[in-house]
Amino acid sequence: MENQKKTIGMIGGMGPAATALLFQKIVEYTDAEKDADHIHILIDNYPAVPDRTASIKSGNDKPVDYICEAGNKLISIGAELLIIPCNTSHYFYDKIQSRLSVPVINMISETALVCKSKGWSKVGILATDGTKETHIFDKELEKLGIEAVPTSAEGQREVMSVIYDQVKAGKEINTEKLAFYLDEMKQKGAEAFILGCTELSAALCNGDYGLEFIDTLEVLAKSAIIRAGYKLKLS
Amino acid sequence: MENQKKTIGMIGGMGPAATALLFQKIVEYTDAEKDADHIHILIDNYPAVPDRTASIKSGNDKPVDYICEAGNKLISIGAELLIIPCNTSHYFYDKIQSRLSVPVINMISETALVCKSKGWSKVGILATDGTKETHIFDKELEKLGIEAVPTSAEGQREVMSVIYDQVKAGKEINTEKLAFYLDEMKQKGAEAFILGCTELSAALCNGDYGLEFIDTLEVLAKSAIIRAGYKLKLS
Repeated sequence: MENQKKTIGMIGGMGPAATALLFQKIVEYTDAEKDADHIHILIDNYPAVPDRTASIKSGNDKPVDYICEAGNKLISIGAELLIIPCNTSHYFYDKIQSRLSVPVINMISETALVCKSKGWSKVGILATDGTKETHIFDKELEKLGIEAVPTSAEGQREVMSVIYDQVKAGKEINTEKLAFYLDEMKQKGAEAFILGCTELSAALCNGDYGLEFIDTLEVLAKSAIIRAGYKLKLS
Repeated sequence: MENQKKTIGMIGGMGPAATALLFQKIVEYTDAEKDADHIHILIDNYPAVPDRTASIKSGNDKPVDYICEAGNKLISIGAELLIIPCNTSHYFYDKIQSRLSVPVINMISETALVCKSKGWSKVGILATDGTKETHIFDKELEKLGIEAVPTSAEGQREVMSVIYDQVKAGKEINTEKLAFYLDEMKQKGAEAFILGCTELSAALCNGDYGLEFIDTLEVLAKSAIIRAGYKLKLS
């Protein structure tokens, strides 16, 4: 049964662009010669899920109901393995998994595992204030003996500015200031940087910073392919 | 009820890359300021649907069962409007629609309507041998009084070569020869060209041919947004 191929269910809409990007990455990275070699993927792009950061800040877990509603729908039509392309929603991971009857891949712990496999002992985390304040990455890294290098207040403000004032606002991306803070974290020992917000992948993918980045969406795409019983395309 | 927002169901996997691209286009073209403004979209990326061209050539309608199976699953979890990002599968459109309880947008007739709205009376159709032989585009265009300009045998061979030997094979794209045949069709009166195969969008999107192209996947994305009761983002 170990090698049986599984149907993937994607609980999406948080946001829709990240959901579409993850779908595209899974298709692109699957070792396939023809349509029939590809993975059966079911997607619920459900943008009505309440804002995760707002729920965390006000101490409620409203998103869990919506996420589980979508998850159960996907299970009802055949999903055997679930993925959620939203870093922040993983704050509710245990509650979500406890209410769904099939495994949900945890993109945060998968990312920590990749850091461990690379042999890193110190990494920087680039994410929204919301994700940072929940310490979801720090905790998973700590379990594997990896230290999260703190971001200075100015550096974190710059990360937020790149996400909100540049990427989300559709403006021109300027990472000159951000590069200064990344270098600052490198001086403090960061061997690599986790892109813990999908907007940052878009912002940083074209620069040459002489730094190593780990894109959580890439990690999730590859993990989903392997856990569904398929092979990765050799690049 | 006319303006009620609808949940879109996408019967995909034919192929998976086109399905991911259509999803991405719908997200990109929806007039939305935040996640919650986006469309609820359910997708079944079902790559096991038998090859459409092979079924048409051997005179069976095997794909219909698979397409309707996926469609009914999507309806069971809330889809109110269905789309199928595969030109060739529209050969079976009437059979598919008759077996599904919600409207299926016909990407072929939507494309013909766009041609009509542009005021064209003669267009060229760039598609696989399979799609061309079924005359699905010609028939829909004819209903609206638009003539399909014939492609020469050499021109059709070149279209197939670009699709199979270049795009599908992941090779470098060279449309120099194709441009010659497009010009030949232009001389015969073609005012525009229907990109009736998603692989051609990839091949032709970057060239400057001084010609007008209609991408069927673009047409379907925009039509789905409007028919689901949402607005198009002004570009």
